[in-house]
Amino acid sequence: MIETPYLLFLGDAPDQLAVKVAQGIKDWRPDNAVAQFRMDGCKADLGLADMTLAEAKEAGAKTLVIGVANRGGVISAAWKSVLLEALNLGFDLASGLHNLLRDEADLASAATKNGRSLHDVRIPSEPYPIANGVKRSGKRVLAVGTDCSVGKMYTALALDAAMQKKGMKSTFRATGQTGILITGEGVPLDAVVADFMAGSIEHLTPDNDDDHWDVIEGQGSLFHVSFSGVTLALIHGGQPDALILCHEPTRETMRGLPDYTLPSLEAVRDTALALAKVANAGCKVVGISINTQHMSEAEAEAYLAEVETRLGLPAVDPFRQGGDRLADALAAL
Amino acid sequence: MIETPYLLFLGDAPDQLAVKVAQGIKDWRPDNAVAQFRMDGCKADLGLADMTLAEAKEAGAKTLVIGVANRGGVISAAWKSVLLEALNLGFDLASGLHNLLRDEADLASAATKNGRSLHDVRIPSEPYPIANGVKRSGKRVLAVGTDCSVGKMYTALALDAAMQKKGMKSTFRATGQTGILITGEGVPLDAVVADFMAGSIEHLTPDNDDDHWDVIEGQGSLFHVSFSGVTLALIHGGQPDALILCHEPTRETMRGLPDYTLPSLEAVRDTALALAKVANAGCKVVGISINTQHMSEAEAEAYLAEVETRLGLPAVDPFRQGGDRLADALAAL
Repeated sequence: MIETPYLLFLGDAPDQLAVKVAQGIKDWRPDNAVAQFRMDGCKADLGLADMTLAEAKEAGAKTLVIGVANRGGVISAAWKSVLLEALNLGFDLASGLHNLLRDEADLASAATKNGRSLHDVRIPSEPYPIANGVKRSGKRVLAVGTDCSVGKMYTALALDAAMQKKGMKSTFRATGQTGILITGEGVPLDAVVADFMAGSIEHLTPDNDDDHWDVIEGQGSLFHVSFSGVTLALIHGGQPDALILCHEPTRETMRGLPDYTLPSLEAVRDTALALAKVANAGCKVVGISINTQHMSEAEAEAYLAEVETRLGLPAVDPFRQGGDRLADALAAL
Repeated sequence: MIETPYLLFLGDAPDQLAVKVAQGIKDWRPDNAVAQFRMDGCKADLGLADMTLAEAKEAGAKTLVIGVANRGGVISAAWKSVLLEALNLGFDLASGLHNLLRDEADLASAATKNGRSLHDVRIPSEPYPIANGVKRSGKRVLAVGTDCSVGKMYTALALDAAMQKKGMKSTFRATGQTGILITGEGVPLDAVVADFMAGSIEHLTPDNDDDHWDVIEGQGSLFHVSFSGVTLALIHGGQPDALILCHEPTRETMRGLPDYTLPSLEAVRDTALALAKVANAGCKVVGISINTQHMSEAEAEAYLAEVETRLGLPAVDPFRQGGDRLADALAAL
């Protein structure tokens, strides 16, 4: 578990897109974001106060989170000097980068010297059990997609926010690096060893109050041949009571797989539900989340209405409309 | 790749069941098995010549394979002295044990000193790519099961043997520790990191002659909640042209999951085929392999006849009947 609140390191980000991790933290857990730290040449701005390391420490920040993608897969000398100073000032560091903080000898030794933690959320931080399939108390909802990167994390975060606002008991359960940095904990499922995938999700979503919902971040797609096994481990480890289908209607081929077209929402519904019932016979598909970012308002409205009629389920774009109707669908279960 | 042929180390096996890895090597790759090495108190016997390390070396053995399960998860002092002597005599060592040979300091240093290899097939020996889903030349058949441990490896090995005998081009592709030790190579899929599971199977079953069959060893089951993700990665990474359904009819609950009953063969057929068609639209279910070890001859015959009629596919027990009819079904495709 990563200590909060954070100082968000934007480094020398070339554009706003490069800081989407930091943006996610600021959007979804604003209380976790004390300030931003920008270096010379940084082209991104979250609209947070700019603070020095010392100012942020004074303001209560516990962890410097690398909220920016690095270029060329190396941690530059300019970054390094900031990270070392942060450790010396008593910050922990957290990163989702592929190159691990712990593999940098100077960072590792500064962390040891100062008694600080290096959180590399790219890889698991603990051993996971093999799944036992035992039915757990509490309820769980999982986002499943027609493809990778169609908005499953966004959907889950928006749903969790809407449920909290309605006074429902819910917890967003992160299964990817960005989600883990946003909330401070979770399972980096894509880096878990095959035998323990489903077990890691059982571990992430333990017994809970009967009226509590775990809102589980989805990964991959049953129809994405590179990552479908990860998706099925989520479905069987998560034992969901409810599924939400996620889709991006303008995408023509599967992400990274130019020879593969996207499945229909009906195909995802039928396939995911049949598999989910193996672990939870009462599972239901309760709603549809459509990422309409590449559509006009009018196109989006027409598409959502058509899908809602066709599938007989609430269909929303949580970015445009929030997660209220999806939360209502869960409350009605 | 493990150098063959082998000397099979049976250690101080308490019974015949403890040496099932060695038995598999002797049964399926007899040319790989030069001799057996038994210690005092060994209760197992493969019917091979007993040789000392020096005799086996003289007879051409290249690798000492640990063909016996160890008790209590430790490599005993008695075993250790044999393994060290083997390294000093110029043997490589190969093991599928959970505790790795490379983690034993004395074995690691003896291997280095003698320029020998320690093959721990429990874990991957190379990095794997992320699956790209590109259609490969050649044909592939995959065994899928109603449950774990219903005879998928046996089925694949028997099918491969029958195909070889008929002059068909085939290669058994191991995806588990025992299969890897039998053939000397393969992917230990249960130990592969989630993101690379399907890619490891693409890597294992590359482009080949149009009339060549990869006979892929199955793992887990789509209906086994602990390991279903591994199974789906096999289906999508393997791009099978043909599936063979495997079942053990007397089993009442899923292996290790007392709350779960087994799916019907029809459910496995429909679920596996629909998912397989995502990666290979032409995939067909071509036969059924039934493990009738807990049935009498008469019961087995009646059951096989009933399944054959019910599913309209050849149904055989390859242990009783060999893999001929399954090979014929592939040849007819």
